[in-house]
Amino acid sequence: MERLRIELGERSYPILIGPGLLEDAAVMDGTVAARDVLVVSNVTVAPHYLARLERSLAGRRVASVVLPDGERHKTLDTVATVLDSLVERRMNRDACVAALGGGVVGDIAGFAAACYQRGVDYVQFPTTLLAQVDSSVGGKTGVNHPGGKNLIGAFHQPRAVVSDIGTLATLPHRELRAGMAEVIKYGLVADEGFLEWIEANLDRLLALEPGPLARAILRCCELKAAIVAEDEREHGRRALLNLGHTFGHAIEAAAGYGEWLHGEAVGLGLAMAADLSRRIGWLDEGDVSRVRTLLARTGLPVEAPPIGAARALEIMGMDKKVLAGRIRLVLMRRPGEGVVCGDYPAAALADTLAAHFGSAS
Amino acid sequence: MERLRIELGERSYPILIGPGLLEDAAVMDGTVAARDVLVVSNVTVAPHYLARLERSLAGRRVASVVLPDGERHKTLDTVATVLDSLVERRMNRDACVAALGGGVVGDIAGFAAACYQRGVDYVQFPTTLLAQVDSSVGGKTGVNHPGGKNLIGAFHQPRAVVSDIGTLATLPHRELRAGMAEVIKYGLVADEGFLEWIEANLDRLLALEPGPLARAILRCCELKAAIVAEDEREHGRRALLNLGHTFGHAIEAAAGYGEWLHGEAVGLGLAMAADLSRRIGWLDEGDVSRVRTLLARTGLPVEAPPIGAARALEIMGMDKKVLAGRIRLVLMRRPGEGVVCGDYPAAALADTLAAHFGSAS
Repeated sequence: MERLRIELGERSYPILIGPGLLEDAAVMDGTVAARDVLVVSNVTVAPHYLARLERSLAGRRVASVVLPDGERHKTLDTVATVLDSLVERRMNRDACVAALGGGVVGDIAGFAAACYQRGVDYVQFPTTLLAQVDSSVGGKTGVNHPGGKNLIGAFHQPRAVVSDIGTLATLPHRELRAGMAEVIKYGLVADEGFLEWIEANLDRLLALEPGPLARAILRCCELKAAIVAEDEREHGRRALLNLGHTFGHAIEAAAGYGEWLHGEAVGLGLAMAADLSRRIGWLDEGDVSRVRTLLARTGLPVEAPPIGAARALEIMGMDKKVLAGRIRLVLMRRPGEGVVCGDYPAAALADTLAAHFGSAS
Repeated sequence: MERLRIELGERSYPILIGPGLLEDAAVMDGTVAARDVLVVSNVTVAPHYLARLERSLAGRRVASVVLPDGERHKTLDTVATVLDSLVERRMNRDACVAALGGGVVGDIAGFAAACYQRGVDYVQFPTTLLAQVDSSVGGKTGVNHPGGKNLIGAFHQPRAVVSDIGTLATLPHRELRAGMAEVIKYGLVADEGFLEWIEANLDRLLALEPGPLARAILRCCELKAAIVAEDEREHGRRALLNLGHTFGHAIEAAAGYGEWLHGEAVGLGLAMAADLSRRIGWLDEGDVSRVRTLLARTGLPVEAPPIGAARALEIMGMDKKVLAGRIRLVLMRRPGEGVVCGDYPAAALADTLAAHFGSAS
């Protein structure tokens, strides 16, 4: 089992990564202090793992709420149903919300925990690669609004994250590949050595070999933790983690949430960020090709939907990364070194958008 | 103009108290840094003060949302309408939410600001005495749930509080009296000298004399700030501020939110807390009578609705102040010294409830 401690003063918490953790009552005793637990899961994950988690939580008063599956249910209304469950079970301030599922479940459950009685504990049990590498660190919770992704939410740190990599065996392979986009992102933005390691171990990762998997998840969490520790509230350096995300959000929003998996959209966003970085002279053709090759080997889409550059730009204008009307983007000065950048030529961005989305409106 | 700075590290903010502040563009320049402002008000307050505030905010892009009036609209649905307005106006992270109204408007607007893009600035312009003395300090925002009051919310500090005491001229006198209950609470819980000052100046306060009013509001904010500074997240000493509130919540919830004004319920809650403090030997009959006399002079109700002790206890069981199943209450060791207490005899609480609410279920 890999183990990492996220240092955040009194809100520090452990991340445990390994196979079989959901069945391990000792792990639960070390991570779930509450007597009252509401497990939040969804209709896809619950049949596989809910009973297992409930058994491991024996001795506590455990209730559960099983949500519909999918990004389109990541709404304030769904949060309200979780809050209703907490009230209905008369859970108090010392209760704990346990998120059992992917990033959507974690975001909803975490936001409900943040809002209930102005903040109760929550523990994450992520069951997708994406959630294990990306949602475990950073404290972001929240839901979508018809006007934009993740527009409603809170910063709320979990008490612990328990990543049972055995759960990836039941994850659809498409979602595994989507999660790999985030893993690749960490290499591109912060650690070229890790990028090379991913290139060398991609097949073992996609074959779910426990050793490489746990190592990859651990490294992503370490890299994210280092960035977040410097900038918990996302005023500066933390924005690096959005490499590929601003482009990705445009794809997701234009295609309708749920058509593209988040990781798929981010993956293509990485290629677009590389393309723009090349247009301003930071990367060369070889770097761009390297990114696209890695995405293709992973089985991720490398062609954008033809939504038109104008529509994409409009969507990006509503993105949270906008600062005083200027679209700040994360670009790469070289592979392994991301830079938050607002002073690229507007024409270069327009060219990147047109090259990928088409120029029709 | 009275001025107080709430010291909270990087989230420190000023409170300005005086007449005519809503018309003072210099005050706005010193407190509202944002270029984009969404003013949240309600149908009662907006006709009096919205245009005035908008004029003083000239030079900024100002939009407004006018909510229905009343505690029963303090719901997650109303927060959603404020969030819709923020999205619709395409407000970004550097926008500011301005709350113009009483505590309900402040709680809704503050919670919307806390949730929008995981937290944008907000500035409070409280227009009721209750909001000026109580909502200005502490960072609590949130809404009610059918299962209980303030069950959904966040801690989110304002950037500034601007208390224009001129607005109290249009406040219904019933609400002014209700606000005085909170003023009295501060004397009872933390400052007997202030309690005596209130007793001596009550008529001038109820007649809205600016000098005494500003002084009373300032002193309440100082006392609250001192308590909150020690305990921002309400784990211990901050619970003192709930003197009268646990009993008060039972009254409000049983009567239906909005039947009793919050301050009226708190006022009667003060009398009940005094009664229980007497039953356990901390106060004497004279102290209880002193509290009831001051409430009566203020014009506050001193008789509880006959909801029955059992129902009251059930409601109190859902209260946030419950810790591991035990109802902690704020009592008084003497006038001016509140104590958070969980080890009073259950029979004494039952007697207080029966004496006020009746023993029928």
